Amino acid sequence: MARIGIHSFVWSASSAQADLERTLANTKEAGFELIEFSYLDPANVDIGRLARRIADLDLGVAISIGLPANGDISSADRAVAARGVDILNRTIALTRDLGGRKVGGILSTSHGLQTEAPTRDQWNRSAATLAKVAETAKAAGVTLNLEIVNRFESNLLNTAAQGLAFIEDTGSDNIFLHLDTFHMNIEEADAALAIRNAVGKIGYVHIGESHRGFLGTGSIDFAGIFDALTAIGYDDDLSFESFSSEIVDENLSKKTAIWRNLWTDNMELARHARRFIAVGLETARRKAELVTATQKP
Amino acid sequence: MARIGIHSFVWSASSAQADLERTLANTKEAGFELIEFSYLDPANVDIGRLARRIADLDLGVAISIGLPANGDISSADRAVAARGVDILNRTIALTRDLGGRKVGGILSTSHGLQTEAPTRDQWNRSAATLAKVAETAKAAGVTLNLEIVNRFESNLLNTAAQGLAFIEDTGSDNIFLHLDTFHMNIEEADAALAIRNAVGKIGYVHIGESHRGFLGTGSIDFAGIFDALTAIGYDDDLSFESFSSEIVDENLSKKTAIWRNLWTDNMELARHARRFIAVGLETARRKAELVTATQKP
Amino acid sequence: MARIGIHSFVWSASSAQADLERTLANTKEAGFELIEFSYLDPANVDIGRLARRIADLDLGVAISIGLPANGDISSADRAVAARGVDILNRTIALTRDLGGRKVGGILSTSHGLQTEAPTRDQWNRSAATLAKVAETAKAAGVTLNLEIVNRFESNLLNTAAQGLAFIEDTGSDNIFLHLDTFHMNIEEADAALAIRNAVGKIGYVHIGESHRGFLGTGSIDFAGIFDALTAIGYDDDLSFESFSSEIVDENLSKKTAIWRNLWTDNMELARHARRFIAVGLETARRKAELVTATQKP
Amino acid sequence: MARIGIHSFVWSASSAQADLERTLANTKEAGFELIEFSYLDPANVDIGRLARRIADLDLGVAISIGLPANGDISSADRAVAARGVDILNRTIALTRDLGGRKVGGILSTSHGLQTEAPTRDQWNRSAATLAKVAETAKAAGVTLNLEIVNRFESNLLNTAAQGLAFIEDTGSDNIFLHLDTFHMNIEEADAALAIRNAVGKIGYVHIGESHRGFLGTGSIDFAGIFDALTAIGYDDDLSFESFSSEIVDENLSKKTAIWRNLWTDNMELARHARRFIAVGLETARRKAELVTATQKP
Repeated sequence: MARIGIHSFVWSASSAQADLERTLANTKEAGFELIEFSYLDPANVDIGRLARRIADLDLGVAISIGLPANGDISSADRAVAARGVDILNRTIALTRDLGGRKVGGILSTSHGLQTEAPTRDQWNRSAATLAKVAETAKAAGVTLNLEIVNRFESNLLNTAAQGLAFIEDTGSDNIFLHLDTFHMNIEEADAALAIRNAVGKIGYVHIGESHRGFLGTGSIDFAGIFDALTAIGYDDDLSFESFSSEIVDENLSKKTAIWRNLWTDNMELARHARRFIAVGLETARRKAELVTATQKP
Repeated sequence: MARIGIHSFVWSASSAQADLERTLANTKEAGFELIEFSYLDPANVDIGRLARRIADLDLGVAISIGLPANGDISSADRAVAARGVDILNRTIALTRDLGGRKVGGILSTSHGLQTEAPTRDQWNRSAATLAKVAETAKAAGVTLNLEIVNRFESNLLNTAAQGLAFIEDTGSDNIFLHLDTFHMNIEEADAALAIRNAVGKIGYVHIGESHRGFLGTGSIDFAGIFDALTAIGYDDDLSFESFSSEIVDENLSKKTAIWRNLWTDNMELARHARRFIAVGLETARRKAELVTATQKP
Repeated sequence: MARIGIHSFVWSASSAQADLERTLANTKEAGFELIEFSYLDPANVDIGRLARRIADLDLGVAISIGLPANGDISSADRAVAARGVDILNRTIALTRDLGGRKVGGILSTSHGLQTEAPTRDQWNRSAATLAKVAETAKAAGVTLNLEIVNRFESNLLNTAAQGLAFIEDTGSDNIFLHLDTFHMNIEEADAALAIRNAVGKIGYVHIGESHRGFLGTGSIDFAGIFDALTAIGYDDDLSFESFSSEIVDENLSKKTAIWRNLWTDNMELARHARRFIAVGLETARRKAELVTATQKP
Repeated sequence: MARIGIHSFVWSASSAQADLERTLANTKEAGFELIEFSYLDPANVDIGRLARRIADLDLGVAISIGLPANGDISSADRAVAARGVDILNRTIALTRDLGGRKVGGILSTSHGLQTEAPTRDQWNRSAATLAKVAETAKAAGVTLNLEIVNRFESNLLNTAAQGLAFIEDTGSDNIFLHLDTFHMNIEEADAALAIRNAVGKIGYVHIGESHRGFLGTGSIDFAGIFDALTAIGYDDDLSFESFSSEIVDENLSKKTAIWRNLWTDNMELARHARRFIAVGLETARRKAELVTATQKP
């Protein structure tokens, strides 16, 4: 059964302990079953305490990151690539320590607008490195989930088909796709077809609107998305993600170009999202049953 | 603010007093604010008692009918037409007595598959007669709402544009359109455009799926419908309608050709519909606000 | 490669030889590759001459019928059922004699609004009888294609899933589905899903709009239909069907309730349909290629 | 009547005279009626000769630009803003000299990913400056059309509603919106609603797919776009725009992050686009007529 999660930046971009704990409480209050955090630095956060709080609230947890330019594992510069591996390893450890099982985000290359087209060498270096990191992750009981993002945020993996080819090149069975409807809306020929073609290889899904605001108030055909996820039997985690200029993370807000205020009341936003996803998934399930019902007299 | 109603045949086709009262209780329990009944015969039903029960539960009420072949007001046979007028007048009285303000359904001609194309004379007779009935209705504080139905259920008014032309020909200001998404899906070039073009003239709306089952499990673009209703500022009643072979009304089930079992648990169906409509209307309202937000820095 | 056909009632409902031959010429002129006729009576039509004309123009041909009430093979009345078998056998012979390979339409029961729900006995009688007729058809090099129509035109097979169950019950490998987008729009939970679920069992497709007029001017998501046909590798015939009060067939126009004039210029209609389908199929093919393109750097 | 144009980068990013002239020939051959160029430097291009070639082929012409960072008219640095004004003035002169009437593109601020949110001062400076430039344009018989682009390409005007507010602040009657479906897909709550709300203020439209490739192979609801343009009576120019890694412009390809090869045969692409737009516009016109047809018997 799919757990419905929410990205913590709906609540706060702060990593102060009190804010993190309020984020957990809000997540629970709004009806979600999983919290997604960006990387949290154990030097500043009491991870053990946070893990207990997550467990007490019976929440799942996932961690997502975007590799920085100076920690890009696809780089020909060995020091840069090594820094990337270190970041990934620390993220895996954090995820395990919080009780999570999934690392998501932009793992194959750096996050942000590039100025050069990617090369086959980059692709190959990234795949080879990630294959090894995936072993570390496996040992920690954690999967790697490659977020497929739009052209302005990465130049390497922009479509699910590219992601599948990349995963194949890694040879790993511990690397999956992290699909995100916001990005799919820009890059995929057809988000629903892309999901169907990725059956068995989707590890995590972000449910976000085309403008990153309230679900259903943009151009994404969520019914089609939910139908496709139902058709392939996806029953793993899906997390709501939304950004507004109301909550600013210095790093992420700029790379994702958040200029507009799409909401101020995040509890209203979250509750609407929870209802929207729940009604959508239920409707998709009923549709799938109906379309195959033989209904003999 | 729109009231969300439900057609009583979701609950029961019986007009036994106990069944009618259970229908009211179910309607309330499932979260609806209005009940739509087909014509109830005061000879068999304690209307006063039912009216009090409706009022006690703080429910709205609407009555819908389909004229029978032998009570078709468009008929050249005066006795047939007179019978139709009598049916309409009794329906108006019933509606008033129950505390309602709207009569809906197929009022301009008979309900059921026809074998001949309609004539201009029929149209004119119907418009002239309905203009007079509308005065009676007005005196009773009740509006007439012409249900625009598909080709298999009437040959006279199949589109909103036809309905608007017909209303204009009546010259009455007490006749409105009763639109129904199930029928619009078959007849309208574009249900959303049809709604926009009917601004100010829509008195009642049926929200039904293309196959008459669970909302969202068919081919209707409800987001487009809710957007159009929002765009024209429709804030009047909308009622969920669904038919399944589970609940049979001898008259209606045959004219509407209900052969398949699209649901068995009507409370589940109703609650899903209530959530689906509520989330849909909220989403449409938020989208309309967002699309006009100037968002200056 | 799919051939794009057209139903002859776009051109004329007459079966006078000259009209039939003009229909062929129009079909060719508008760019279609196949003509679909309703049953033509060899007593009145020079079938050999028509067949040569079809061959000369390098057109394909398909025949569709709807069994009459007095020739319903699902009937418990043996004389009625036998009349139905006779009609089917004559249709098979006609199809073969014209050089065609497909019989389509409402073959399992009678065409028209029913007043009683179907029974399991009807279903079983129909399946058993059709299994035998399918052998006759096979010997003639012709397939039977069961048109799945809406509730107002038949009570037995309204969805593709019902059709598949019925075909399975016949045990025949010479019976396929004849899907029609007009009917699917009313009955299917999701036309595209229904097509995907029927992979390998679709023998013929009608492309018709929700109101039976110009393609694209109604509520059907043709892009979704073309995507689904592409996804399952359907590369067989698809025929455009449209009805308007402009061209009346006494039998069909009433059963299908054609009251409105949706077009007057049938050549304009046909050419638009041809372009619409061709652009739609090309676009679907390109989309399917794109969504799987690995696009490694 | 709308002219259907095409952006020259479908054909070539070169501004060598021979390439420009081949671009015109291709444009004509593919059936387009207007060519859109990015700014062409009169120091390198024989503008008079190009203008005659355009006139000889009976083509329309439009010029689009994106202001560079060092020519941003919203800048507080006067030298930067003055450079921007100079660029705009030269673009207006070029447009006039080529026989065009429209300047489009990103005129209110610089093109490219920003790292800071915009300020009200920027907005005000840009509006005041553009009001003056619009007078220069008016004298040259040219309109300014503000391209509303996605968040990754500008931080100032991302939605049509922002554009309308900005135009109002300029006080000019010679500034219009240049809408682009690719960008609308990312930023607008509803592209069709945004178009309806901008009635009378749209001067130019880019028809581009969500991934910038073949029309119809992405996530944009072009039927809805064409319906909305038809509903507001837009009958001005619309140009097809598509980018692929096949044709690289050093400046534009990086700012727009073109990494994938979405087509190689540009003539096939262009012809498909021409057919797709023509069929789409015709269908929208017919739908709009049908939805208002009174169709009295």
